[in-house]
Amino acid sequence: MALLAETCRRMDNTISLIIEELFQHYRDCKEGELADYIPELTNVDPESFGISVFTTDGHCYQVGDSLQEFTIQSISKAFTYGMVLDEHGIEVVEKRIGVEPSGEAFNSISLDPETGRPLNPMINAGAIASTGMVSGEGFDERFGRILEHYSRFAGRDLPVDDSVYRSESTTGFRNRAIANLLRNFEMLDDPVEEAVEVYFKQCSILVSCRDLAVMASCLANGGVNPLTGERVLQSSNIERVLSVMSTCGMYDYSGEWIFTVGLPAKSGVGGGVMGVLPGQLGVAGFSPRLDPKGNSVRGMRVFSELSRRFNLHLFNVPVISDQVIRRIYNLSHVGSRCQRRKVHHDAVREHGAVVAVIELQGDIFFSALERVIRATTERADETEVFVFDLNRVGLFDEATLGLLLSMTKQLVDSGKRLVIVDQGHRVDHERFSGLEGGVRFYKDLDVALEACEDEIIAAHVDRPLVDELVPFHDFDLFRDLTAAELSTIEGMLEMVGLKAGSRVIRQGDKPDEIYLLAKGSVSIFHRVGEDSESKRRISSFGAGVCFGDIAVVDGSRRSADVWAGEAITCYTLSVDNLSRLQQEFPEIHGKVMRNILLLNIDRLRRSNLEVGALKA
Amino acid sequence: MALLAETCRRMDNTISLIIEELFQHYRDCKEGELADYIPELTNVDPESFGISVFTTDGHCYQVGDSLQEFTIQSISKAFTYGMVLDEHGIEVVEKRIGVEPSGEAFNSISLDPETGRPLNPMINAGAIASTGMVSGEGFDERFGRILEHYSRFAGRDLPVDDSVYRSESTTGFRNRAIANLLRNFEMLDDPVEEAVEVYFKQCSILVSCRDLAVMASCLANGGVNPLTGERVLQSSNIERVLSVMSTCGMYDYSGEWIFTVGLPAKSGVGGGVMGVLPGQLGVAGFSPRLDPKGNSVRGMRVFSELSRRFNLHLFNVPVISDQVIRRIYNLSHVGSRCQRRKVHHDAVREHGAVVAVIELQGDIFFSALERVIRATTERADETEVFVFDLNRVGLFDEATLGLLLSMTKQLVDSGKRLVIVDQGHRVDHERFSGLEGGVRFYKDLDVALEACEDEIIAAHVDRPLVDELVPFHDFDLFRDLTAAELSTIEGMLEMVGLKAGSRVIRQGDKPDEIYLLAKGSVSIFHRVGEDSESKRRISSFGAGVCFGDIAVVDGSRRSADVWAGEAITCYTLSVDNLSRLQQEFPEIHGKVMRNILLLNIDRLRRSNLEVGALKA
Repeated sequence: MALLAETCRRMDNTISLIIEELFQHYRDCKEGELADYIPELTNVDPESFGISVFTTDGHCYQVGDSLQEFTIQSISKAFTYGMVLDEHGIEVVEKRIGVEPSGEAFNSISLDPETGRPLNPMINAGAIASTGMVSGEGFDERFGRILEHYSRFAGRDLPVDDSVYRSESTTGFRNRAIANLLRNFEMLDDPVEEAVEVYFKQCSILVSCRDLAVMASCLANGGVNPLTGERVLQSSNIERVLSVMSTCGMYDYSGEWIFTVGLPAKSGVGGGVMGVLPGQLGVAGFSPRLDPKGNSVRGMRVFSELSRRFNLHLFNVPVISDQVIRRIYNLSHVGSRCQRRKVHHDAVREHGAVVAVIELQGDIFFSALERVIRATTERADETEVFVFDLNRVGLFDEATLGLLLSMTKQLVDSGKRLVIVDQGHRVDHERFSGLEGGVRFYKDLDVALEACEDEIIAAHVDRPLVDELVPFHDFDLFRDLTAAELSTIEGMLEMVGLKAGSRVIRQGDKPDEIYLLAKGSVSIFHRVGEDSESKRRISSFGAGVCFGDIAVVDGSRRSADVWAGEAITCYTLSVDNLSRLQQEFPEIHGKVMRNILLLNIDRLRRSNLEVGALKA
Repeated sequence: MALLAETCRRMDNTISLIIEELFQHYRDCKEGELADYIPELTNVDPESFGISVFTTDGHCYQVGDSLQEFTIQSISKAFTYGMVLDEHGIEVVEKRIGVEPSGEAFNSISLDPETGRPLNPMINAGAIASTGMVSGEGFDERFGRILEHYSRFAGRDLPVDDSVYRSESTTGFRNRAIANLLRNFEMLDDPVEEAVEVYFKQCSILVSCRDLAVMASCLANGGVNPLTGERVLQSSNIERVLSVMSTCGMYDYSGEWIFTVGLPAKSGVGGGVMGVLPGQLGVAGFSPRLDPKGNSVRGMRVFSELSRRFNLHLFNVPVISDQVIRRIYNLSHVGSRCQRRKVHHDAVREHGAVVAVIELQGDIFFSALERVIRATTERADETEVFVFDLNRVGLFDEATLGLLLSMTKQLVDSGKRLVIVDQGHRVDHERFSGLEGGVRFYKDLDVALEACEDEIIAAHVDRPLVDELVPFHDFDLFRDLTAAELSTIEGMLEMVGLKAGSRVIRQGDKPDEIYLLAKGSVSIFHRVGEDSESKRRISSFGAGVCFGDIAVVDGSRRSADVWAGEAITCYTLSVDNLSRLQQEFPEIHGKVMRNILLLNIDRLRRSNLEVGALKA
């Protein structure tokens, strides 16, 4: 291969290039007019133009005036509606705000002729009703809570444009009329004037295009801000906010918008447009020149083009659930990283098929869990213990957690046992408390598998696992030695006891001896840097196993640290004694070397099988 | 572990149990009335009740009268609309049928007052306009094409209820009026009567609840029937059909339906309701008693309850793209399964970091590919060759394929090379034809990695890879032997030439010799059954490598077949000569055994590293 430096040039992200290209393309578009119903809105540079895309894993693409601030205006409607859903619940909110599209323009009054209820929260009437439901003592507290709510969506403290607010307040007679009509139908509480004022000020909150993309990405990300990791909206209300954005967000153009662009969206007369591709990303455009319906001209075009170029349509969805099962196997095929005596490994291999391990990944929604339930049911007949590894899982929603509990109960009732590996408490362990005995929790998959293997060995191998010393002549290392040879060896072994927490072998050292673990177990850690304390547990050894032989045989340095997690007892065979053996007892030396070879062939076989199972 | 047979009982699928429970619960609901606008519709058993759920991977849950047939009625509107989109394209169809919700009931006339265009395809006017666009010579051909189209959705030949058809035809004056109005506005071609008749007959096609679930699952599955694997609708039209189902499918109740149930859906007065959870599943309910709006009472309740219990809301979506990258590594960490000489392995390990391997999985939609592009860009500086494994990928849509091409071009322009592993031709290889030299295609990842390794070795190891015989004294097996010892060994080796296509070792045989591959390469296959011909390629060996040593050393049977894919030359060291060595030249035998040990320790190290990399 050629040298890197000679042939390779720095590369830009392909998507950045395309967004940049779109930006350059629409830069020349001068169509539309600035909003002028209040003079303050004409103070903005009509040439301003920004595009931002924010992914649910927190990556931002941005171009142009992405950081320039403008007033949020009608885009606020979606966020305040979500806020009152979180605060009061759907049963209370739906009494005052409907969810049917009005088919009319944004400032239409659109109250239900019988009840006076606004048809939906995306028209001004519904939005004022939402703002009216934000609780707090007086104007400052109510507005303060709204500002704080939006700021949590944006991941930064958002400012307010006071001159726009004052101007809206001075001229907002139509909205005052709507508020009084709402009050007339008891869709708004007293004081009416306070609610309208809070609404005006909410519309004057300043955001940048990047802020809007981040805010949209919170809606795309199930209510968790990808930037801060904070939950900003209850997950059950995400689908409600997105529903009204998709059916009513673009007013009388909503059907067409979903059909062609396919992103639940909201625009404002400040020049911003915000769209959500659920589960994937938030998109925002900013350009202050508006079309006659009050939407940003360049913003709308950028949305259409992004959607077309990247096929971002809401209903262009991946078939998700094939990937929920990362890997499925039983302990006959893939085991823990614990190195054991051959007889123990053989027992696990022979009897391990009754332990099924299912590693899950991604967010667990219904049809993902459906695949898991199906895989579990299919294997139920031949399985005694199911190990579910949730450590790569994003989240369970309430519905799927309930379903998981139902399945767990069923499994326990059918006489199965469950092991749930869940370091991050993705499921509430308390919820499983009725199933004591049937369900165990672990933090680490390897440790869980080791425990399952211990059980298999305890059930199928006569010799007990613990408490007594494994006699030296039981070690595979000394297989086929005669009684006389064994007694020669015995004279060459030392017995060493080490306390819990001792380091047995230090990575990088020259090897002095082979260890035969007579009692207890040790863990192997690989240190990453030279003097670094950062280390990774790579395996463990149980009683009856010899270790440290490889470095002794091939003369390399110790490749890892070995620590005693509990008090251990070892026999050691020193390098010097091994040389003495070679000089004085070549027959014995030959047998020991042959045993080391067989030991490593056996390790190799197991390792190859595992590679095969893992690559399959 | 306890014995399986004693403790474990057969287990039912948890989801089946819950659907069964729902079925039992709503069985007692007697609300609603049979449709009676034509007498034939009252001939059905009012107690009939079925629920079906069909997943995108073809699994069916069904309960009750799931196989009982009834007329499809208005549910047909979604399918004929999709059919004419496929046939004529959106530009033609949108001239005659809009996509805005009417906010009115199903039989409202709802034509645009200016153009006479029906507001959307889910009201009768739009549906008759759709049917009018189905091409064909005369009634029989036009209806026949519709029936065939629906049958491909259902995965079986659907029958027709002729008495319902005749009755609809006899009484359908309102629909005839609509058709003539459409003709008046030139939204329908002559002959008007034929279009209405085809429409009546289309509504009389018989489906079962299971059929509807399968048909819905085609819409959920991107237009491919999960049952037959056949594409039944163009993928670009899926999002269009689902869009109008979601905004207009439930008439003036659509906003509320999406808000609370959250599934694009369609119901018919035959008692059927069909819903789609995109990417996940199709749902259907059947029960003939209708509410005043003409929807199946039990059907609607089952949908609400299924959606609530399983949280099936459209906007309750998983964050999908974290799973697109199944695994990412470079050739320093994980290599091909090819066993090579130590010096070659070392070269790959030392220089392999410039080959980055990215294994993808799932359907590749924008934000999935976005993650891939990001991962690629991040690694561009230190990478010379990118290997993309697409063998676990579902599909690329046109937009993401375009994006992949852009990235590929950029990579090639920056001096990188690409290897695309794509057995199933998920991407059109022709589209990459401008990038000759920069992009290579392989069917098998392992073969692709082997080729990359060959290149690394050719660039970094002096000795050429092919053409000349590796001399026996260069084999690691004879390391550290003196000249005299080597000549002793030479006398014990045989040289064997084998033709391409020969079996070198047969699985299950007793081992007779160790092979030293002097020229060519061999592949290792594991046969699954005893006499079975089904075999799996597990690895390969290159020139300079010895194989067959393990079975000779530990006396086991051959564990796999070894085949020569090309003409090869081997040295062999027989078991007899190995014994002779042990008797007559124990010094040499000791060295050879030690070398076998070192060889296997080295294999074990590599294998363990791979397990670590694969489990990480």
